[in-house]
Amino acid sequence: MKALLIVAHGSRRNQSNHEVMALAESLAAKCQHQYSLVMAAFLELAEPSIPTGIRVCAEQGAAEVVILPYFLNTGRHVAEDIPEQIDIGKQDLPNLTITLLPHIGALPEMQNLLIQAAVSK
Amino acid sequence: MKALLIVAHGSRRNQSNHEVMALAESLAAKCQHQYSLVMAAFLELAEPSIPTGIRVCAEQGAAEVVILPYFLNTGRHVAEDIPEQIDIGKQDLPNLTITLLPHIGALPEMQNLLIQAAVSK
Repeated sequence: MKALLIVAHGSRRNQSNHEVMALAESLAAKCQHQYSLVMAAFLELAEPSIPTGIRVCAEQGAAEVVILPYFLNTGRHVAEDIPEQIDIGKQDLPNLTITLLPHIGALPEMQNLLIQAAVSK
Repeated sequence: MKALLIVAHGSRRNQSNHEVMALAESLAAKCQHQYSLVMAAFLELAEPSIPTGIRVCAEQGAAEVVILPYFLNTGRHVAEDIPEQIDIGKQDLPNLTITLLPHIGALPEMQNLLIQAAVSK
């Protein structure tokens, strides 16, 4: 069984965290052919943390957790903090396969989305 | 003359800031029918700041600055900090029109981008 973990920064504003959780719920319905479980986790300021998210996926029966960083740029969080938290999360789960996808901002389509936002106004 | 100001968070990692500046350059070429000038500005940790970005656009002849927040969620930065910095930026520019677009994460297409990222692996 494969799980998708959407990792966002986390915010002091609940609305922001709820947006990410709603996104995960929506993706759960739309990606169910590939992922039996889709959930959100946060780098900081909100729960569940990345290690907790990984553990929950494993407890729900995931043999593989695919991690999608919901971040725009290759900052410290993407380059260092997320891989670090993943390492912590998999320490006690030696049989779990973890696949870290490129962050969402690395997709070439992101530029088209910006153009669309900028010219549609 | 209309300018587009892409506002990103800013990072201690230069690579992250350069990504945003490269994005602005690329958009400059692709949106030139609508924007005579496209530049990047940063909320923190990098230069130019938002007030400086607004001032530079005005100095380059912009009568309107369209601001596109390159942010994913409605966190404190989007809800409070960016509008605050815009207010500071326009204090000395009473004749400048500033249009604040929704942040990029508010676009409905963002969900499709996530699905694409998650299922293409």
